[in-house]
Amino acid sequence: MLVRRHRLVGEIVGLGRSQSNLDVALERKLIDTATRDPVEAARGSDLVVLATPIMAMPATLKAMVDYLPPDTVITDVGSVKGWVVRQLEPVLGPRMALVAAHPVAGKELTGASAADPELFKGRRAILTPSARSTPAAIAKIETLWGATGATVATMEPDVHDRILALASHLPQLAASSLANAIAEQRINGLLAADFGATGLRDTTRLALSSWEMWRDICLTNRDAIVDSLRLLQSSIVEFEKLVAAGDAKGLEVVFARARKMRERLQ
Amino acid sequence: MLVRRHRLVGEIVGLGRSQSNLDVALERKLIDTATRDPVEAARGSDLVVLATPIMAMPATLKAMVDYLPPDTVITDVGSVKGWVVRQLEPVLGPRMALVAAHPVAGKELTGASAADPELFKGRRAILTPSARSTPAAIAKIETLWGATGATVATMEPDVHDRILALASHLPQLAASSLANAIAEQRINGLLAADFGATGLRDTTRLALSSWEMWRDICLTNRDAIVDSLRLLQSSIVEFEKLVAAGDAKGLEVVFARARKMRERLQ
Repeated sequence: MLVRRHRLVGEIVGLGRSQSNLDVALERKLIDTATRDPVEAARGSDLVVLATPIMAMPATLKAMVDYLPPDTVITDVGSVKGWVVRQLEPVLGPRMALVAAHPVAGKELTGASAADPELFKGRRAILTPSARSTPAAIAKIETLWGATGATVATMEPDVHDRILALASHLPQLAASSLANAIAEQRINGLLAADFGATGLRDTTRLALSSWEMWRDICLTNRDAIVDSLRLLQSSIVEFEKLVAAGDAKGLEVVFARARKMRERLQ
Repeated sequence: MLVRRHRLVGEIVGLGRSQSNLDVALERKLIDTATRDPVEAARGSDLVVLATPIMAMPATLKAMVDYLPPDTVITDVGSVKGWVVRQLEPVLGPRMALVAAHPVAGKELTGASAADPELFKGRRAILTPSARSTPAAIAKIETLWGATGATVATMEPDVHDRILALASHLPQLAASSLANAIAEQRINGLLAADFGATGLRDTTRLALSSWEMWRDICLTNRDAIVDSLRLLQSSIVEFEKLVAAGDAKGLEVVFARARKMRERLQ
């Protein structure tokens, strides 16, 4: 939507699994042509943006690589970068460049119908250049994300993954864990979840996200995610001890600390 | 705002701690007269709605009780009901009635400036009648909350507390725990929290809530809150094990279960 508006590209080919999603993309003029055939998508494409669940990226690129022009630039939008770089670099043709990227914005919705030109405005797009990134390819991907209104940042893939395990992957797992903890709980026959208000809804909103996407994030950023889950457990245990002890002063301190953190995000 | 609009009461007296908040309440016409003196507030009041942090309720009522008309009805809006009933009943004058109540709706904001006549619409107001509730007093409080557009439900105080420990107190503690877990984490000098997007913001929004209110909820609903925190820990450990094991199928199952729970809340 945005690269077309900014006239950054010529023809846009949409490669997808489901015809219905491709039809929505055509109808909303997000793409010029649609195909479910990777070979057809590859021919003549000088830029490939992989936007599948992470673990499908290597196979998707492999299916296209022999039919792509030799100097094609490959990028992606996955939430994990170390794994993507390690898996995609060996697949590239000898003159192709890879610039792995992660626009840090999202919705719990998926597909062409959820496309929103405002989504990236004021957010961050993180590029993680690696051995197979060329200065020209990096500049191209910077221009692409700059056009969305995002601030472009650059960092090492593994630094990205440890940061996002905390700032993005942990909130997702906290939301899904909270939803699962409450889901089936009944007190005197009453379903507890039925008595939640906006607080419960907001705190669990991320549980609506695509499990396919999140399964792959969990599988490709394991160590950093396990570390972040342990941090959250410590934080919960801290509350548990204070509640069990009836420690008013201690509770004030931890609630105030949490509030200060959240105020910084405003 | 709403009881005035529905002409359910005569004069409304606001008793508060801070003059600035009382001034906002006067200016917004939420109250007719303002006072910081419980004795002045008590005289002639045939209905008292306690809306302080929970643990301040007994002292607030004690300071008024000798100056209230003998048949005054007492109610409250606290998020814990067992403790409130146990603490307030012994304070009542011999002919007074108590109908403890909890409108299950809220914002992370406090004070008269946050008053919102739409807040309770479509939500639940839970009454927890007890030994000192009379049918006439219950009917009065039902009318009061019915006027807000809330659905009025009735249950035992301790059933309320166990349900809300899951549906409301746990989301609050999950949000504050998540905020604390991430707060000071730096990777290569970069503050992880700076890289969060709307997901992090939504999931931690409740951390902005009044620590004074939540400290008292934690102190007065200890056992049920400790139980709910342990449930959440089990749920997080379930994810941790699946991530550590790289169990794709298991992750799909738990993400899907969480999503199904959240879809029911829509």
